[in-house]
Amino acid sequence: MKRRFERPRPPVPAQPVSRVVTSLTNPLVKDIRALEMRKVRQEAGLFVAEGLKLVADAIEAGWPIRILVHRTGEDKPMLARAVRATRQAGGEVLEVTGEILEKLSRRDNPQTVIGVFGQRLERLAEVEIGRDEIWIGLDRVRDPGNLGTIVRTADAVGATGIMLIGDTTDPFGIEAVRATMGSIFNVRLAAGSAQDFLAWRRRFGGLVVGTHLAGTHDYREVDYAGPCLLLMGNEQQGLPDDLAAACSRLVKIPMRGKADSLNLAVATAVMLFEIARPRLALD
Amino acid sequence: MKRRFERPRPPVPAQPVSRVVTSLTNPLVKDIRALEMRKVRQEAGLFVAEGLKLVADAIEAGWPIRILVHRTGEDKPMLARAVRATRQAGGEVLEVTGEILEKLSRRDNPQTVIGVFGQRLERLAEVEIGRDEIWIGLDRVRDPGNLGTIVRTADAVGATGIMLIGDTTDPFGIEAVRATMGSIFNVRLAAGSAQDFLAWRRRFGGLVVGTHLAGTHDYREVDYAGPCLLLMGNEQQGLPDDLAAACSRLVKIPMRGKADSLNLAVATAVMLFEIARPRLALD
Repeated sequence: MKRRFERPRPPVPAQPVSRVVTSLTNPLVKDIRALEMRKVRQEAGLFVAEGLKLVADAIEAGWPIRILVHRTGEDKPMLARAVRATRQAGGEVLEVTGEILEKLSRRDNPQTVIGVFGQRLERLAEVEIGRDEIWIGLDRVRDPGNLGTIVRTADAVGATGIMLIGDTTDPFGIEAVRATMGSIFNVRLAAGSAQDFLAWRRRFGGLVVGTHLAGTHDYREVDYAGPCLLLMGNEQQGLPDDLAAACSRLVKIPMRGKADSLNLAVATAVMLFEIARPRLALD
Repeated sequence: MKRRFERPRPPVPAQPVSRVVTSLTNPLVKDIRALEMRKVRQEAGLFVAEGLKLVADAIEAGWPIRILVHRTGEDKPMLARAVRATRQAGGEVLEVTGEILEKLSRRDNPQTVIGVFGQRLERLAEVEIGRDEIWIGLDRVRDPGNLGTIVRTADAVGATGIMLIGDTTDPFGIEAVRATMGSIFNVRLAAGSAQDFLAWRRRFGGLVVGTHLAGTHDYREVDYAGPCLLLMGNEQQGLPDDLAAACSRLVKIPMRGKADSLNLAVATAVMLFEIARPRLALD
């Protein structure tokens, strides 16, 4: 696996040869399918994103494209540009049948374009939060749909990045990437252990706000100006004591009905729209 | 199917007979498994909820319990109360092995209690929105996780009910019910066509607020006091023209990053916390 992805990049051909792959035993097709497994993704440092516009935007933004897969017969100008950019970046272009695309995406009506990109995951210990930046810390988040949705919301409010703390679901898994709706390319991701986070926090001079059942502050009463990290516990347990103790403020989102908690992606969104509230305005 | 669920209720036995069901061919077990199919759920007017506390709370709140399934060997006081209440309500109690529970819930570590309840779904045309009530209208919502999460959030902000407009995912499907985390029992549900909704809207004197790309009002600038219906388009298309035209106000949630939209459950939550904002306070 590793060897194949890392083979020397071929020179850009003057006249690119186009061949339509129709077989699931094609080595590149097999490699891409193997990226369904977290271990393989991690070793190869790669992940899969689907959709022409999303893939084209990512290439344009400088994300390292390794393989561009597209359905045979497509001839949109945006695709032609993506194909050229992929070849210029030394990536491979694969023209496949609709059937192969269905197998690659495990979907009945798959997108017509798939991109295989290099992962970008920073070390939590090295994150510097700039003036007015918003970051989110997620403690052992489990559900890929929640994680992807949080990445999407973070992008929407202009947050800079997300720290994945402890053992979390893989942000580069296909379900998480799908839920980001392309925002995986717009939000920085960093990962580290709870110890890494606690060490990082001792060096950080900004505001760390956690949501907590024991929180005594209404989340709307805090001044979130300046660099800010929002710390969220996971779906089952909320913040453990050591992480809660690392917060400058523990806040609570007031509720009225019989529900005693919110979905994690919803709670994170409600917090983020409050933190970013003074910074958001219609054009 | 129908006949079996509707057979005459047995009188409450003085000494309830407890028998442990170990076979998947048990007729009640087969009936419950058949509730995985929307058509069967609809015909029987039933749905499945999982979890002891959630089921016990629902029985106590007067929801019609038809079958209570629990794992053999459990003897919590809360379960004993639920068993008694089920028998008093003329429902059946089924003691099963862990293996059967796994099959019923299609999960490896299933909850130890499952309840089969009668559905409650009102006619959209007959909904009356009371003073200070918040309702949500969902246009052709597709994703059961989104719908369930919206039910949960609606409960959390003290909204009264949800109108399902047009062809939507089934709120009584297991994935939707799970995502509500019990809030399915706390929020009223009504269903009808887009025409039903438009006819209803002409009779409704309160505020109908829709989110729309063409919205010119910042969602934070509207006075949401009084009866209010929040109208949300579906995951793919946003509000169609006829529904948008039925709104008193079209609002927009401002964003800053590159993402051009929010997940439906997230957008609904951000709106709901704004609408309910003056009504929410920590105890």
